[in-house]
Amino acid sequence: MTLEGKLLIGQQAIEGSRAAIQAINPATGERLEPGYPGGTQDDVERACELAWTAFDTYRETSLEARAGFLEAVADEIEAIGDALIERAVAETGLPRARIQGERGRTCGQLRLFARTVRAGEWLDVRVDPALPDRQPLPRADLRQRHVALGPVVVFGASNFPLAFSVAGGDTASALAAGCPVIVKAHSAHPGTSELVGRAIQAAVKKCDLPEGVFSLLFGSGREVGQALVTDPRIKAAGFTGSRSGGLALWQAAQSRPEPIPFYAEMSSINPVFLLPAALEARGKALGEAFAGSLNMGAGQFCTNPGLVLAIKGPALDDFVAAAGEAVAASAAQTMLTPGIFEAYESGVAALADSDRVREIARGQKGEGPNQCRTGLFATSAEDFLASETLQAEVFGPTSLVVECSDAAELARVAEHLEGQLTATLQMDDADLDAARALLPTLERKAGRILVNGWPTGVEVCDAMVHGGPFPATSDSRTTSVGTAAIFRFLRPVCYQDMPDALLPDALKAHNPQGLDRLVDGRREG
Amino acid sequence: MTLEGKLLIGQQAIEGSRAAIQAINPATGERLEPGYPGGTQDDVERACELAWTAFDTYRETSLEARAGFLEAVADEIEAIGDALIERAVAETGLPRARIQGERGRTCGQLRLFARTVRAGEWLDVRVDPALPDRQPLPRADLRQRHVALGPVVVFGASNFPLAFSVAGGDTASALAAGCPVIVKAHSAHPGTSELVGRAIQAAVKKCDLPEGVFSLLFGSGREVGQALVTDPRIKAAGFTGSRSGGLALWQAAQSRPEPIPFYAEMSSINPVFLLPAALEARGKALGEAFAGSLNMGAGQFCTNPGLVLAIKGPALDDFVAAAGEAVAASAAQTMLTPGIFEAYESGVAALADSDRVREIARGQKGEGPNQCRTGLFATSAEDFLASETLQAEVFGPTSLVVECSDAAELARVAEHLEGQLTATLQMDDADLDAARALLPTLERKAGRILVNGWPTGVEVCDAMVHGGPFPATSDSRTTSVGTAAIFRFLRPVCYQDMPDALLPDALKAHNPQGLDRLVDGRREG
Repeated sequence: MTLEGKLLIGQQAIEGSRAAIQAINPATGERLEPGYPGGTQDDVERACELAWTAFDTYRETSLEARAGFLEAVADEIEAIGDALIERAVAETGLPRARIQGERGRTCGQLRLFARTVRAGEWLDVRVDPALPDRQPLPRADLRQRHVALGPVVVFGASNFPLAFSVAGGDTASALAAGCPVIVKAHSAHPGTSELVGRAIQAAVKKCDLPEGVFSLLFGSGREVGQALVTDPRIKAAGFTGSRSGGLALWQAAQSRPEPIPFYAEMSSINPVFLLPAALEARGKALGEAFAGSLNMGAGQFCTNPGLVLAIKGPALDDFVAAAGEAVAASAAQTMLTPGIFEAYESGVAALADSDRVREIARGQKGEGPNQCRTGLFATSAEDFLASETLQAEVFGPTSLVVECSDAAELARVAEHLEGQLTATLQMDDADLDAARALLPTLERKAGRILVNGWPTGVEVCDAMVHGGPFPATSDSRTTSVGTAAIFRFLRPVCYQDMPDALLPDALKAHNPQGLDRLVDGRREG
Repeated sequence: MTLEGKLLIGQQAIEGSRAAIQAINPATGERLEPGYPGGTQDDVERACELAWTAFDTYRETSLEARAGFLEAVADEIEAIGDALIERAVAETGLPRARIQGERGRTCGQLRLFARTVRAGEWLDVRVDPALPDRQPLPRADLRQRHVALGPVVVFGASNFPLAFSVAGGDTASALAAGCPVIVKAHSAHPGTSELVGRAIQAAVKKCDLPEGVFSLLFGSGREVGQALVTDPRIKAAGFTGSRSGGLALWQAAQSRPEPIPFYAEMSSINPVFLLPAALEARGKALGEAFAGSLNMGAGQFCTNPGLVLAIKGPALDDFVAAAGEAVAASAAQTMLTPGIFEAYESGVAALADSDRVREIARGQKGEGPNQCRTGLFATSAEDFLASETLQAEVFGPTSLVVECSDAAELARVAEHLEGQLTATLQMDDADLDAARALLPTLERKAGRILVNGWPTGVEVCDAMVHGGPFPATSDSRTTSVGTAAIFRFLRPVCYQDMPDALLPDALKAHNPQGLDRLVDGRREG
């Protein structure tokens, strides 16, 4: 398939007329053809109008039709074949195996949402039948289901060109909920975006859905994104990226005449707590395993372990020595974009230049462009608490060890942390009481709490929570990964005394879809 | 019980030190003793600190303990006896029977949430067991439950001194979710608030819960409310009241360093659609029934039918004549407060003075203070669409009939409406197609759609949705009435590979609470 460099609006491919973005191979610095001229306000208008027109039809597609569409998207993505892998590798500098795995995850995610759509639990059907003889007043017949919010804007993320991008988690969950989607492509991987966008376009056509169910826009700067988020026909948005970018768009969404849910996943340093018995028993092994998690994907995971907390002493010294050794041996890795590389360099420099911090180790220098050196630094709890710089996320493979004088100080540091996507406990049986004491704080701070694992690697399943208190995300009540993400794009509607002929299938008396329903306070399946 | 006029902070009763608020009997203009001196920033600080301290304990109370507490609150409210009814009547001017009914609803609501807490569905337990042999990567053991957001601020509403106030729906759902609650009492009914607040205080003590689970603050002006909403220990808030008041507090909540969910129920005109066959068959009867709903509680319901939409013609004329006759015969009713009465008078005057509006009927004049006259006005669809004044809520027993030239114009008006709590269809079998055509619009505009009923009267049950798109509420994804309201105050947390000894009961392998759980994609009970 030849890349055309065009906006995909409904079933059309349209030449943009603003400044073109062009992908750069971060591993070589080479500019990749074609250019992608940006969309205008008119293009945004057209995509929103099509999405709005499609909405009432798409949201009432049958469970089977919608599930089939999600599966068709997965099939079409797989049908692109190697061209997708090659382009994504070229645009991101990520290893081929990683991109292949990410494609599997992306398609698996779409198919998991298809299963979720078919099961219908997301409709959360509740029926309170009429009680005409109730005293002092009769009860009307009341039936509730969930309906889609409306057209949704999804911002592609730089660090997962497939799984958090054009057909990523936000798109899959919004489409599953019954919302048309307009994606604003991330400017770092426009070719990958076009390929996946065309796959969705093809699935829309194959499934005979209204063309406005999906559009894909390109644009440098903030113009297209702001225009999308502030369009009155857009009813929610999903974003994964920087804190400043997320907050600017969140602010725009809240300042509309009609504010809308804006799900931003922004910033997390993912603290790892090394509890005393575990540290004592396997400090060295933990240090080596930690470095593996730190280096994964050049540290460009939202869940990268950017902070290690432990009580100082010989066992922590063993951990630090082993982690430092592994870090020093770490090969340089190509980062996703020159911008991310520059931000990483300046974040590491801020740590290195701080009087409050000592360098434990740096990884090997690279020879190509945009290659980052892994970094490991240490500080005291006191210094950490006193410095906002030390608490800020450095996006990339650098972590900070905070040495606490005792359990009480460790607890104080934990309590001081901002909201996080994850918190990790390394513990042995003898640490149970210490872990139990920390747990309430971690539950208040994080969306996911891990024991004896590493936070990188996010399973797509029913129980996953990839979210957390601000600033990890803008809305801790939801997750961006896993099937519960469908609830981001739904709202409840109640139907009172509505004739069966007018009720949606989910609420009809004879339950034609065989849904699990809460009837008069009892589950019926 | 003698009213003391004090702030209730934890188990203490504390004299405020700011300007005192004093209730006024709106039916007589009499000032009611005692005065309630307002709280200071220090009082807010103390209540928030107590709530924060109570949080980790309260949120982990057993399902049985928490349900028992909600039931104890209901028992204590009933134990106040007639003193509560008398004070509430004096402070609101509402009829005794209405207040008695509202007490029943308030206590029933608390007991319904007790049932909901015990059932445990709100925990939304999801378990994805480990798959150690999965290729290419094993799956960790992942378990999700919901946890309480944190201390919640509830703003008492003027129009339901019991059911939407100190122990009303927001308080009940937040306590059910495991959140300590600080109530900012509505200044119109401080005595009622004190009585109910003392009942909750007594229940906290009886159930041996941490005292910070509940506090009650008074304060004129916005100081106390703003201080509460911006305190970092407060993690969510519920509000029922005016659009301007709700938006100001919502803005404060969003401008915090850590924004929080702010559930404001603000403004709704609750359109009633009279479809042609129904109008033809029973225009007169509809007119009379409509006037009954319009007058209920002096029109001071969030769901008061402030707008009637129909196609003009003789059948609509019959409706208008009958409704007008009933309105003209309507006795004057005492409104809740002098402020509400004044706002009503000026809202009605704006309608009456508009060139675009004609008066159909006004109700009888009252003789006492704060007595409102019912009002019925009419306008054309064209004028309605052209005037923001005509689209604004007039809080009280006044409604506007919008005469449309045909079904297409009626659909245009429906599409033009802002978000609503309710939309009502009056229809006969012959109207099915017309209703079906309108339904998608109504689903996008309203939280509850009624057929052949009237929107006043909100059942407290599983299927109720008392909410809707902005500006009816600030968050259409939730409801403020019914058991689903518990989800407002919860967020999901995922536990990965956590030892059973550390897991909360809801997630333990042997399911000690016997909860319904989603295990590996299948329901297990």
